[in-house]
Amino acid sequence: MTKVRALVLERQHELALRDIDLPLETGPGQVKIKIHTVGVCGSDVHYYTHGKIGPFVVNAPMVLGHEAAGTVVEVGAGVTHLKAGDRVCMEPGIPDPNSKASRLGLYNIDPAVSFWATPPVHGVLTPEVVHPANYTFKLPDNVSFAEGAMVEPFAVGMQAAGKAKIAPGDTAIVLGAGPIGTMVAIAALAGGCARAIVADLAQPKLDIAAQYQGVIPINIREKNLIEEVARLTDGWGADVVFECSGSPKAWETIMALPRPGGVIVAVGLPVNSIGFDVSTATTKEIRIETVFRYAHQYERAIALLGSGRVDLKPLISETFTFEDSIKAFDRAVEARPSDVKLQIVME
Amino acid sequence: MTKVRALVLERQHELALRDIDLPLETGPGQVKIKIHTVGVCGSDVHYYTHGKIGPFVVNAPMVLGHEAAGTVVEVGAGVTHLKAGDRVCMEPGIPDPNSKASRLGLYNIDPAVSFWATPPVHGVLTPEVVHPANYTFKLPDNVSFAEGAMVEPFAVGMQAAGKAKIAPGDTAIVLGAGPIGTMVAIAALAGGCARAIVADLAQPKLDIAAQYQGVIPINIREKNLIEEVARLTDGWGADVVFECSGSPKAWETIMALPRPGGVIVAVGLPVNSIGFDVSTATTKEIRIETVFRYAHQYERAIALLGSGRVDLKPLISETFTFEDSIKAFDRAVEARPSDVKLQIVME
Amino acid sequence: MTKVRALVLERQHELALRDIDLPLETGPGQVKIKIHTVGVCGSDVHYYTHGKIGPFVVNAPMVLGHEAAGTVVEVGAGVTHLKAGDRVCMEPGIPDPNSKASRLGLYNIDPAVSFWATPPVHGVLTPEVVHPANYTFKLPDNVSFAEGAMVEPFAVGMQAAGKAKIAPGDTAIVLGAGPIGTMVAIAALAGGCARAIVADLAQPKLDIAAQYQGVIPINIREKNLIEEVARLTDGWGADVVFECSGSPKAWETIMALPRPGGVIVAVGLPVNSIGFDVSTATTKEIRIETVFRYAHQYERAIALLGSGRVDLKPLISETFTFEDSIKAFDRAVEARPSDVKLQIVME
Amino acid sequence: MTKVRALVLERQHELALRDIDLPLETGPGQVKIKIHTVGVCGSDVHYYTHGKIGPFVVNAPMVLGHEAAGTVVEVGAGVTHLKAGDRVCMEPGIPDPNSKASRLGLYNIDPAVSFWATPPVHGVLTPEVVHPANYTFKLPDNVSFAEGAMVEPFAVGMQAAGKAKIAPGDTAIVLGAGPIGTMVAIAALAGGCARAIVADLAQPKLDIAAQYQGVIPINIREKNLIEEVARLTDGWGADVVFECSGSPKAWETIMALPRPGGVIVAVGLPVNSIGFDVSTATTKEIRIETVFRYAHQYERAIALLGSGRVDLKPLISETFTFEDSIKAFDRAVEARPSDVKLQIVME
Repeated sequence: MTKVRALVLERQHELALRDIDLPLETGPGQVKIKIHTVGVCGSDVHYYTHGKIGPFVVNAPMVLGHEAAGTVVEVGAGVTHLKAGDRVCMEPGIPDPNSKASRLGLYNIDPAVSFWATPPVHGVLTPEVVHPANYTFKLPDNVSFAEGAMVEPFAVGMQAAGKAKIAPGDTAIVLGAGPIGTMVAIAALAGGCARAIVADLAQPKLDIAAQYQGVIPINIREKNLIEEVARLTDGWGADVVFECSGSPKAWETIMALPRPGGVIVAVGLPVNSIGFDVSTATTKEIRIETVFRYAHQYERAIALLGSGRVDLKPLISETFTFEDSIKAFDRAVEARPSDVKLQIVME
Repeated sequence: MTKVRALVLERQHELALRDIDLPLETGPGQVKIKIHTVGVCGSDVHYYTHGKIGPFVVNAPMVLGHEAAGTVVEVGAGVTHLKAGDRVCMEPGIPDPNSKASRLGLYNIDPAVSFWATPPVHGVLTPEVVHPANYTFKLPDNVSFAEGAMVEPFAVGMQAAGKAKIAPGDTAIVLGAGPIGTMVAIAALAGGCARAIVADLAQPKLDIAAQYQGVIPINIREKNLIEEVARLTDGWGADVVFECSGSPKAWETIMALPRPGGVIVAVGLPVNSIGFDVSTATTKEIRIETVFRYAHQYERAIALLGSGRVDLKPLISETFTFEDSIKAFDRAVEARPSDVKLQIVME
Repeated sequence: MTKVRALVLERQHELALRDIDLPLETGPGQVKIKIHTVGVCGSDVHYYTHGKIGPFVVNAPMVLGHEAAGTVVEVGAGVTHLKAGDRVCMEPGIPDPNSKASRLGLYNIDPAVSFWATPPVHGVLTPEVVHPANYTFKLPDNVSFAEGAMVEPFAVGMQAAGKAKIAPGDTAIVLGAGPIGTMVAIAALAGGCARAIVADLAQPKLDIAAQYQGVIPINIREKNLIEEVARLTDGWGADVVFECSGSPKAWETIMALPRPGGVIVAVGLPVNSIGFDVSTATTKEIRIETVFRYAHQYERAIALLGSGRVDLKPLISETFTFEDSIKAFDRAVEARPSDVKLQIVME
Repeated sequence: MTKVRALVLERQHELALRDIDLPLETGPGQVKIKIHTVGVCGSDVHYYTHGKIGPFVVNAPMVLGHEAAGTVVEVGAGVTHLKAGDRVCMEPGIPDPNSKASRLGLYNIDPAVSFWATPPVHGVLTPEVVHPANYTFKLPDNVSFAEGAMVEPFAVGMQAAGKAKIAPGDTAIVLGAGPIGTMVAIAALAGGCARAIVADLAQPKLDIAAQYQGVIPINIREKNLIEEVARLTDGWGADVVFECSGSPKAWETIMALPRPGGVIVAVGLPVNSIGFDVSTATTKEIRIETVFRYAHQYERAIALLGSGRVDLKPLISETFTFEDSIKAFDRAVEARPSDVKLQIVME
């Protein structure tokens, strides 16, 4: 164990930038990374404000942060595809490679996965971290650390886009223009959609999404979404509906949105069970997909950033120093509608 | 119009075997079929007992019956694949071939489909009927009229099995051992499943399903289904869960049944919205499919019957004459747990 | 029949701009279209230079042209989604809606399909044409006739991209940067690929393709493609290889290009059988897809053009008047490497 | 290393039943298995008669045998799903769990896989073997060791059936009724096909396949396969064609067999490149799949055996003692058409 400085969530409502003991030995198959940039994620903020997410409860001080990019400073035995000096970003979840789910390629739904900043696992708002090389991905020269630290939330969008099985030229609807909804819209367009109809109540969020070519923003305070979709699709409906609001209300009328044979991808997580209108879903043979984090998406996401086909920089709302990281979290708690991504730079 | 004898649902609760005017001209692309056997379906019975199903209301006298087999007696202009004397069964739904859904191959979810014995369309409990040749299918010599008349409900099972995208050797669960659940279990096994764990409260229904090799019957009055599934799958869960009970209660715990990455096929239709636990579904990335009737399943179903790989004869509980067809419906109203399929023979 | 002016291929090597009798009655379900722009396609040119393509032989004078856009001037009975004045483009192939292939949604491989400018069917290098409304598609205001007339070749690229079942962020290789290869590269990128490595011998063709973000041009006179792909994919290989050259030589080494589990989409048509190295394909479990024209792609292609996510205008090399249409064909015969698409404007 | 008795291929044409040093330490995650039954596979025989298969050359004495079942006698640290006394069968290939292919779930095409009886890796014709628990599978009580030893070749059939993406009720063609073709036919039927049209020149092979319900044997010395398929499918073609002969001649006319939109699964391995008629494949948009061994098939195969839906016992032609194992190989060299599977029992 090494004593290092870190942003520690002591308990609900209490953050401290202080020294803590963390393991920093680089074992076989691992790399040590000097952290450069860490994004503030809604789940980090939720642990701060609520002390738990579902069954995961903060019972002991925990370092926050799981959206990270940095530079390899040491490589363990057997690591061949990375070397010191490589600029990288990291998947925060480490599965058991020998579990049944992992062997099937479904490592994201391996129940044994260990995930940064999910109690009791520490996160990476600290200068250095040791990580499996297999879950550490090299960034192209033209992808900045700031963008590298956004691969994690973008990978959620990529996973959702993958589940939809988009056919080129599809029309998507994205319900909810928060950070994840926006990532999903960008991934859906990059993944082949011609149009992403993005619906939200908050105009500032819609304005940010509308910067992306192919996004059709709809403020549902002002317009009836079902009518707009009917108008935009000649009454046929959307090929894919991404539910990113987690709102039970969204589920009440969602079956009116997809086309016959269309798909709904549930990305947002309602707190309780929602009402599912099986009969209406059935008359259109709607398929429903669910999404848990991501698997095999980092290289794909990085390829899209590196080729210039996806630009996430417009989503960076403000950058804080490590010393100001508590300020970053307090700003995140404000939940300004114009904030998409707040980031903390370590050096 | 020709005056012919038919089993007419005059209104809710009132059946009559009487003469009625029906169109019997064989137009281009059509065939005239002498009906031999008609199965009694739950929907026929529901119109009899309730006078409606969802938005479909019996506002005028309607001939019942839509599970039918018979013999071609006349072929219209342009029909080449059928000739007089061919033994056939018929799809009861006729879509608009030029609709968008039909052109995509999804004719079952074409909103313009016209379906036998669905108000205001007459059914086929009458000696002869005219039908499009494209929806009339030749029976092999070794498939009887009785089996031919069961292709319709079996096609529902086939559609469900198709939606599941079964991989050979999958383990399925079928919730509900009524006629449709049993058809689904048979189709799931024929479609590649190694095992179909069939769950119900009624032992006579389970006993009928258990005649089929690969069916593992579970009486949920006596055993805990979640525990049994865990035991039978070493804690992993089933690849496919077919929900055929339509019971909201079944949906309360259904997410415990599929394996990570598994699928739920919703076949049963709950009257109201059911509670859908998105969070638990998400942790396993469960996919949910819905099923509306069937498309492109008749030839496949007939091929399975013809090759001997599927035998539906054990499901025929009793056969009535046309003269006794009201008795057949009154027996169906009893809903004896040991009754799967009641049939009416016209001649 | 109406006597109208048209570009007629009298026989191999002989074109005439002359009057010819064509049917111009607008029947039920049909629309009459005033043609605005027609693209010159390689197949038109091939009939001109060779008098046949495979089994299709020009035995009688035939109007050329099948890549067309124009304006609806008359609508037949029962047509509801189009009206006079609508700007449209048209699918050149008309299937039998009642064929087995069409009912499955595979109308492009219906053997009964009738296709413009494929002997003995006349094409559309003539001022007006009558066409089924179902195969006539409205253009958004921001899509020009010139672009509308390019939907046809782009739809071939879309069909190829669809067959590949691209996952977002895939890396594609396109062998051959002719007009179809370029369309395929654009469709593959629009359809979700992060990168399209485009290989050709002709630098001018590569330069045109390289205008599109995500294209990595490789001149295989100068560089070893297998080495370049290994370098660009860290030795893993490409997710998708689109073979668009039709060259038997390309097939000799193609199995070195896809990743384990990757796919080859055969778009180019070799004249004879090519050598297929089953053993090497097997060690990577390569999948091979083939593509015949397109089905259900026009609306998707138009949506991508309308949303601005795809821009085909850089591919228009030169535009000719109808009076100069023979010049357009003679220019096409030259096969200048810098020419992608030549178009003829009728008015 | 422990000195144990084994069937050793000393070099091409020379087998010896003698002592050899083999590693028999049970490490973490491993189990030690007492071998009961080992099947003789065509590849074992090929090493015996030719001394090599493709790039794999027998340069040093090698123990043969890779189709094996036995009883766990010792479990290593961390193994929880197996215990001493469990009857099991084993996958002969061990991949690197951290390779890119393995992490995607495609461990069979991991280039680093180590496979029993593939030079320089020893096989299992020896009393005991140590193996990773993850690739060791428990047999149900009603599945004998003899059947357990046939899971390996049946898994090849399962992999082929899986690649075909069979829809329930499909019609398959299997070209070649050797041991693998027969396994493929059985797997295709178990995996949902209604019919498997099996074609071969050798009547004894066809007679064995014809024992399985759904198999339609066609002796292509006597009948024209293309005509028979047309007759059996009303001119439409088969949904799936499994090429299991490895004969270049089979590929010459294979494109006439699938239906429009059908699939060819290449299972047999021609020695050289075969001629692939891209143009004809294209007019039907044929898909071609290739198959390399199997992944994730053992549990599925065992489930089908355990449920009674698949019976492989009719394929066991003769059983030899370990002492007679050279006789077993010499009998296999004879290649009697009535021999499907020869097995060696160790005790």
